[in-house]
Amino acid sequence: MYDRNYFLAKAQENYPQLYYKKLNADISGCVMSNGESVLLDLGEHAVGRFSFSLDNVDRFIDAPTRLIIKFGEDLNEIHADFSQYQGGLSKTWLQEEVLNIDYPQTVEMPRRYSCRYIKITVEKTNAPVKLYGFCFTASTSADVSLLSPAQTSDSMLREIDTVATNTLKECMQTFFEDGPKRDRRLWIGDLRLEALADYYTFRQYEIIKRCLYLLAAGETDSLGFLSSFVYETPYFCSGHANIADYALLYVVSVCDYYEHTGDIGVVNDLLELCKVQLDSFEAVLDSRLIVTPQQGWFSFIDWCSGLKSLTALQGVYLYTLERFSGLLKSIGDASHKKYSSLLSKVRAASEEYLFDKESCAFINELDGYQLSVHSQVWMILGGVIAGERAKELLLSCLSDGEAKQPVTPYMRHYVAEAMLKLGMRDEAVQYLKKYWGGMIELGADTFWEAYVPENPEFSPYDDRMINSLCHAWSCTPSYFIRKYGL
Amino acid sequence: MYDRNYFLAKAQENYPQLYYKKLNADISGCVMSNGESVLLDLGEHAVGRFSFSLDNVDRFIDAPTRLIIKFGEDLNEIHADFSQYQGGLSKTWLQEEVLNIDYPQTVEMPRRYSCRYIKITVEKTNAPVKLYGFCFTASTSADVSLLSPAQTSDSMLREIDTVATNTLKECMQTFFEDGPKRDRRLWIGDLRLEALADYYTFRQYEIIKRCLYLLAAGETDSLGFLSSFVYETPYFCSGHANIADYALLYVVSVCDYYEHTGDIGVVNDLLELCKVQLDSFEAVLDSRLIVTPQQGWFSFIDWCSGLKSLTALQGVYLYTLERFSGLLKSIGDASHKKYSSLLSKVRAASEEYLFDKESCAFINELDGYQLSVHSQVWMILGGVIAGERAKELLLSCLSDGEAKQPVTPYMRHYVAEAMLKLGMRDEAVQYLKKYWGGMIELGADTFWEAYVPENPEFSPYDDRMINSLCHAWSCTPSYFIRKYGL
Repeated sequence: MYDRNYFLAKAQENYPQLYYKKLNADISGCVMSNGESVLLDLGEHAVGRFSFSLDNVDRFIDAPTRLIIKFGEDLNEIHADFSQYQGGLSKTWLQEEVLNIDYPQTVEMPRRYSCRYIKITVEKTNAPVKLYGFCFTASTSADVSLLSPAQTSDSMLREIDTVATNTLKECMQTFFEDGPKRDRRLWIGDLRLEALADYYTFRQYEIIKRCLYLLAAGETDSLGFLSSFVYETPYFCSGHANIADYALLYVVSVCDYYEHTGDIGVVNDLLELCKVQLDSFEAVLDSRLIVTPQQGWFSFIDWCSGLKSLTALQGVYLYTLERFSGLLKSIGDASHKKYSSLLSKVRAASEEYLFDKESCAFINELDGYQLSVHSQVWMILGGVIAGERAKELLLSCLSDGEAKQPVTPYMRHYVAEAMLKLGMRDEAVQYLKKYWGGMIELGADTFWEAYVPENPEFSPYDDRMINSLCHAWSCTPSYFIRKYGL
Repeated sequence: MYDRNYFLAKAQENYPQLYYKKLNADISGCVMSNGESVLLDLGEHAVGRFSFSLDNVDRFIDAPTRLIIKFGEDLNEIHADFSQYQGGLSKTWLQEEVLNIDYPQTVEMPRRYSCRYIKITVEKTNAPVKLYGFCFTASTSADVSLLSPAQTSDSMLREIDTVATNTLKECMQTFFEDGPKRDRRLWIGDLRLEALADYYTFRQYEIIKRCLYLLAAGETDSLGFLSSFVYETPYFCSGHANIADYALLYVVSVCDYYEHTGDIGVVNDLLELCKVQLDSFEAVLDSRLIVTPQQGWFSFIDWCSGLKSLTALQGVYLYTLERFSGLLKSIGDASHKKYSSLLSKVRAASEEYLFDKESCAFINELDGYQLSVHSQVWMILGGVIAGERAKELLLSCLSDGEAKQPVTPYMRHYVAEAMLKLGMRDEAVQYLKKYWGGMIELGADTFWEAYVPENPEFSPYDDRMINSLCHAWSCTPSYFIRKYGL
């Protein structure tokens, strides 16, 4: 049986090197009085620590000076009134500090922030103060010197690639963080996409290996599924969600890793754990080989309100079976036959039971006959439908105002992947340009956790100010542009 | 001419050694949820830095935990609502921090606090947190191992002595601080009283020498008076008040220092500066040798609303002339004759022009015929009146409901000094017990900046929560008890 402690020890064998860069603000210093504010612009998104100096001007400040320091990934965040926050996640993610400074000194703020803009307000001072020496020390484990430019003649794709690699760089710290502002943990779904982009950009394979081991050290649930996320700072801690599609995508991530590195040692370490994920999933199929609903947060697929996700989940299972049986075959593991045989049977069952002939789309009766892009995309990626039939299905569903549409860049990634699988290069390019390019048009320095073109204020947490504007799962345009030579 | 830079260099030659002591709170740890508070009691007043640890309980805290940490010298401060503060001094002196803690860690808070009680409120957490390892590292430059117990058979005086030496100890840091919570600067008036107590308790003469040099490095005003206070942290900075009674008491402090140490080098360094103080004062006398009112904050004497202080100031001048001419004589400086001759003449003039025969008290017509304890006390200390006549005058004024009464422990010190000068030991003991003992009855661990027995809520700044409850100028009962064997 696999050993969680062994996995953790492997993860802790090597910590990735961090690269530091000192960024100066656009303002070198200023004199400020009671109630005044100054807005600093670092010129780029950065993850790290902030320091500055404070001094007297004419008179000694005598009483402590109280500053309010706000960090924003964009100007909307800077201008938002944090006291009015009504979102579902903890308000403590909003990056703001109240600092009391006793006397002239250089202040090294101890926490890490994710921002481009910094607003300093003098909440109370007895005399004007001079603020200067603004310095933001940014960190990443991406070695930017290794990054070659994307070989595309399309200037907008080039711009998208730049923002995407920036996004990835910012999320690469001692592990792949979900978002450096908020949700600073390692999620399987994000790891998979970050790793894909990393293989084609910074090629920092060690951090991928670390993440695979860290996740392997997580607790499995009663069904056998891996924890969907883990914490590493300041000590390892397993998350308490075991989402089936993420458990499957962990297996895909191991397949991706082997495909790019040929590192058989890692595969051998993780193989049994991968088999458990697939076998656990097999156990929740009904006699027709269709996945059955389970208690709790069983599947994710997308942050899409009211989404019925069982059909998409079935597609993730097929997608994983295909990749995993391929891995087993390539390393000469005899059990590959078992999984490839299962793949054929489950594919056939999916077509038979999930394709609704009347509406000509994949609709799961267990899910209440809901039409969604998600179901079609994952049936395509699961190989249940292909060719022109699949293209038509995908395009018609994407333009169907009644169908559930993808919300997150995460789900959009799989839409683009489905397009490219079907050879729809032009459509994929347009899709990338329209969606990721749309964020750039709105001023994005890094790609966001959530973006709904029709509603730029959308937040999965009911308040945009808590959204993460630099989010791991949004970095894959670089993967598409570079892998497919778009 | 004396050289301010030389004085500053002398002050910076030696920094006093700081002694550190780790204090644990009465609670070793607790589990806290959203909105809960815990009150820690260090068991004694302490000046220093606070650290504690935070950890997960069952679930990883995930989002940052926001704590509000409040430090109070007494429980009134802890229970006060700082948001309702209406006082005249900066609200930033109120000791409260908002801390965002990203993940389990030991938090070493960077600022210094002055407190006995610490209240920690969990403003927001996603999951219960464990707080533990509460540790307050207290500092002082007083070597408490050198302190012998007061030789008094009176248990209340013994208790007063303990609280007084604690007060002094807490104000002894790298220099004599006015108050470690608020007003962390060096004032002449406080230095003089702290030094007096120090000579009879910790006998830390080096810090007194430092303070004399630090003040000597301050800027003088157009009249020639020394700056009444200076800052030393993080760098030397001269204050911007030049109060005449403080300038005179600086000279007295030099006399005290020589009397206790015989350190002629320091006296030689500071002699010219001392002469300038007296000569500057002489220049503001009128032809009758009575001090004339000047612009600005010319005298302090006491925080007593509406006090007319010119007569008291005249007494401070006489008191200083007497001490300074004595010093000059003892070191063989020929100019002592000039000052002792002046002393006689000014004393005679004071009796002639300031004593009101009708009311049988010292009342200055320039001040609007106000009757105050302050005037009588300083005329006694200035040697204008003595013996039974002086005793009667003092006692009648102290019990006169119409007369201005002392407000601060600072002025009360000089009342007690006047009593002891007049041989009124019993009255002095009763005075100490009633006033300083009154603070102890109200729970004082250290003596306060301001205490008005009839109105314990009194604040010179219109809001008690800003008052300093450990204040240098309140520490002199130990001087009286030990010097006079009370």
